[in-house]
Amino acid sequence: MPASPVALEAALAQVDANIDQSLERLKSLIRIKSISTDPAYAEDCRRAADWLVAKLMAEGFEASARPTPGHPVVVAHDTTATGPHVLFYGHYDVQPVDPLSLWHTDPFEVELKPQPDGETHIVARGASDDKGQLLTFVEACRAWKAANGALPIKVSMIFEGEEESGGKNLPGFLKSAAAELKADIALVCDTDMWNTKTPSITTMLRGLVGEEIEIACADKDLHSGMFGNAARNPNQVLAEIIASLRNPDGSVAVAGFYDDVRELPPEVAGQWKSLGFDEEAFLGGAGLSIPAGEQSRSVLEQIWSRPTCEINGMIGGYTGDGFKTVIPAKASAKISFRLVAGMDPQKVRDAFRAHVRARIPADCSVSFKEHGGSPAIAVPTDGPFLRRALGALTDEWGKEAAITASGGSIPVAGEFKHILGLDTLLIGFAHVDDRIHSPNEKYNLTSFHKGIRSWVRILAAFAA
Amino acid sequence: MPASPVALEAALAQVDANIDQSLERLKSLIRIKSISTDPAYAEDCRRAADWLVAKLMAEGFEASARPTPGHPVVVAHDTTATGPHVLFYGHYDVQPVDPLSLWHTDPFEVELKPQPDGETHIVARGASDDKGQLLTFVEACRAWKAANGALPIKVSMIFEGEEESGGKNLPGFLKSAAAELKADIALVCDTDMWNTKTPSITTMLRGLVGEEIEIACADKDLHSGMFGNAARNPNQVLAEIIASLRNPDGSVAVAGFYDDVRELPPEVAGQWKSLGFDEEAFLGGAGLSIPAGEQSRSVLEQIWSRPTCEINGMIGGYTGDGFKTVIPAKASAKISFRLVAGMDPQKVRDAFRAHVRARIPADCSVSFKEHGGSPAIAVPTDGPFLRRALGALTDEWGKEAAITASGGSIPVAGEFKHILGLDTLLIGFAHVDDRIHSPNEKYNLTSFHKGIRSWVRILAAFAA
Repeated sequence: MPASPVALEAALAQVDANIDQSLERLKSLIRIKSISTDPAYAEDCRRAADWLVAKLMAEGFEASARPTPGHPVVVAHDTTATGPHVLFYGHYDVQPVDPLSLWHTDPFEVELKPQPDGETHIVARGASDDKGQLLTFVEACRAWKAANGALPIKVSMIFEGEEESGGKNLPGFLKSAAAELKADIALVCDTDMWNTKTPSITTMLRGLVGEEIEIACADKDLHSGMFGNAARNPNQVLAEIIASLRNPDGSVAVAGFYDDVRELPPEVAGQWKSLGFDEEAFLGGAGLSIPAGEQSRSVLEQIWSRPTCEINGMIGGYTGDGFKTVIPAKASAKISFRLVAGMDPQKVRDAFRAHVRARIPADCSVSFKEHGGSPAIAVPTDGPFLRRALGALTDEWGKEAAITASGGSIPVAGEFKHILGLDTLLIGFAHVDDRIHSPNEKYNLTSFHKGIRSWVRILAAFAA
Repeated sequence: MPASPVALEAALAQVDANIDQSLERLKSLIRIKSISTDPAYAEDCRRAADWLVAKLMAEGFEASARPTPGHPVVVAHDTTATGPHVLFYGHYDVQPVDPLSLWHTDPFEVELKPQPDGETHIVARGASDDKGQLLTFVEACRAWKAANGALPIKVSMIFEGEEESGGKNLPGFLKSAAAELKADIALVCDTDMWNTKTPSITTMLRGLVGEEIEIACADKDLHSGMFGNAARNPNQVLAEIIASLRNPDGSVAVAGFYDDVRELPPEVAGQWKSLGFDEEAFLGGAGLSIPAGEQSRSVLEQIWSRPTCEINGMIGGYTGDGFKTVIPAKASAKISFRLVAGMDPQKVRDAFRAHVRARIPADCSVSFKEHGGSPAIAVPTDGPFLRRALGALTDEWGKEAAITASGGSIPVAGEFKHILGLDTLLIGFAHVDDRIHSPNEKYNLTSFHKGIRSWVRILAAFAA
C-alpha cells in the first residue's frame, strides 16, 4: 500500500517529538560493553542482543536472539504490510576501547558535547559504529508505527555481534536461515555521509583478508649478550618480512597482488573528481600531510579503489617498563589486506603466505591464523530502490545525494549477495571524523536525528 | 698474613659440612622478588638489600644499605687482616619473569631438580643471575671465618640493585664512595665457566648501548578501512627501520658502526680456536642451527668479539585476542647494541639516532629514550692476581682454568676501572644453558658448592 504524504509527515513529526527518548535508548544500548573480539565480554554481547530483542518485541516485531558458535544473531520481522520487503542489517558489537587513557570520558557512558560549528557530538564507543547507526532505522520503524499504526512495507532485520571480530559465524547463519531472510533488497547502515551536509549512498566497498602470523626462532627466550649476533632474532625476521611487503613507491610488494585489479571506469573516475575531495583536509584531520600509498594515485583512489596491506598490530620481546636484554623466542603480527573488485581473498591469502614462507630462515618457523576474508563488492547503481532512496535522502537533507565508495570492508554486503541473492543499499550517516575504532568515538546528533528521518522517508518512498 | 694449608683445608671442610645451610640461605634470598626494572617491585628490592645487610652483619662485617635515586646499594667491609684488599661485586636484582606461563615451577621458590648427568639444578629466577653467584663469595667468607676466626685478606663488598635495569645510579654512587671503596683488585662473579668441568676467567666483555624509540604518525588511531594506504602506518615505518639495521650478510648496517672495531690479535684468535667451541651444540641448545651474524665470522667471534644490534622488544597497534583493523598512532621498540673494545657508546648512540631520523617520513616524528651505555672492557691478562686465581681454580676443579671472553655486558667492570682505577677479575661458575633472563632459570648445585670452595682457595692464594 503506497504511503500517503500525510502518513509520512505524521511519522516525521513523531521522530521530532520523541528524539530525546530515542537518544535515551541509544544511551542504554551503549552502556552494554559488547566488545566482541575479547572473550571477557561475551556476556555483554549476549546482553546487547537481548536488549535489541526486548526493544523490537515491545514495538510489535517478532524477534529473537539466535545462537551461533559465537555471539548470537538477532532476527526480527514485521511483514504485515503489502508491497516490497526490506532486510535491514546492523551490528551490535563494538571495538575494544584501548588505549583507555586516551579517552576523555567513560567510553560506555554517552557524553553530549556541543561543538563550535553548532553540531552536538554523541561521544562513546559504538556511538557511530554501529549502535547509533543501527538505531536510526529501528527508531524510524518505531516512529512510523507510533504515528500510523503499521509499517508501509515488509521489514525484516538482522543484527550480528561479530562484525568487529571477523564475523566468521554470519555466513553459516545466513545459509541456515536463508528462507526466512528472503527479501527484495538489503539495507545496511554502517557507512559515511559525503560530508556533514551531503547524504550519500556507497556503491563500492573494499574486501578484507585478515591474517595473524607468529614467527618462532629459538626454543626459549635468550640473553642478548650471550647469544646476540649468533641467534636469529624473530623481531628482526618479522620486521624484515613486514618491510618487504611494501615497495618504496608505496605499492604492495606481494607477487601478483595487482594482477586482478582493474582500472576505474572513466565515468566513475570523472564523478569522483567532481566530488571535490580535499586531500589535504582529509590527511590533515589525522595529523598527516603525505599520502603513504601508491605515489601515482590520488588519495581518493588509494582509499577507495586501490588495495592495501596494513600492519594492524605487532609484538615481540619485552615491551613493559624499563629494558630487558632478551632475544625472544617468538614475534607476531596481525596483518590485513583491503581488496578491490576482482581480487580473490583466497588467492591474496595464499600469495601472502608464500611471500612470508619464502623469508623464514631454515631453522625458524612460521604459523598462520586466519582472521576473516571477504571480496570487495560493487553495488549496481541503476535499480529502482537506489533511485528512490537517493530521492528520499535528497528530500531530507535538501542537497543532492552523492554516489560514493568506501575504503572499509562490510563483508555482509558480499554475503547477502552470494548467500541470499540480495543486492544491498549502503546508506549511512556517519562522518570520516567520527573516530570509529579510536578513543573518543562520536556520532553527530544531526546524523542520529536526520538519519532517523531519512529512513522514515525511505520507508515511504519504497512503499510508493 | 699468608694463609696456611691447614687454614685452607679447615675452611674447605667448613664449606662441605655446611652446604645445606648455604643452600637454605640462597632459597631465602631467592624468595624476595627483587625485579628492578618494574617499579611495582621497588619494596622487594629494598628487602633484598636489607637481607644482605643483616646476613653480612651477622658474619661480622660492617654493612649497610646506602640510598641512591633508585634501589639501594649494599656496602660491607671486613678489613681487619693484613695483606691485599679485594672489592667483591654482585647484584641482588633479577630480571622480570614473564612469560610466567612458560615456567614449570614458581620462579621465586627454589626447586632442586636432579638431572640424568648427575648434576642437580637449582631452578628459580636469580638462581644463577646473580643471587647464586654472589652467594658463592659471601658463603666462602663465612666458611673461612667460621673455620679460622678471621679472613686472610681485607675484603670489601658492594651489591647493587639495578644491574638488570640499566644500572644508571651506580656510577654516581661509586664516585661519591670512591675513597671508601679503595682496594687492590675487584672481583666480579657474574660470568660462566667454560664448561661444566672447566673453570675460566673472563678477560673480554662486550659493552652495551640501550635505546628505546617511539615513532608517531597520525594524531590518533585510525580505521584501516577508511585510511588504509593513504595514512602512514607507524608499524610499517618501524619495521622498515628495523629491517634497515642489518645487511643481508648479517652485519649491522648503521653507518660507521665498524669503524673502531679492531681485529682480534692472532694469539687470542689462536687460543680461542684451541678451546674447541662446538658451534652446533651452542646453537642447538637454543633450538637453532644457522648463525645469524656476520657470515664471515665464527660463532665465537660473533658473540665474543663482534658488535651486534638486537631488537629486544617491539610493539604497535592491537596485540590482544582477536583482530582490530586499526592503523595505530604510534609504534615503539627497545633496541640494544653490544659493543667491543674500541667502540664509543655515545658515538654508536649518535649514529643509530641519525640512522633512524633519516628514515622518518616528514609528517611523522620519532622520540628516543636512553637505557644505559657502557664501553666494552678488556682485562689485562698478566697481573699477579689473575695468575693466582687461575691456579686456585685449577686446584679446585682439577682441570686447567681457561681464559675466555663473554658476549654479555658487565658495565661495572668498566666503571671500576674508570671511577675507582681498579682492574677486575671476572670469575663465575654459571653455564651457558642456565636460562638466565628466561623462564626456568637454573644454577648447577656443583657451581654453587664448588664455586664457594673456589673462592675459599682464591682467598688463600691472594693471602699467600
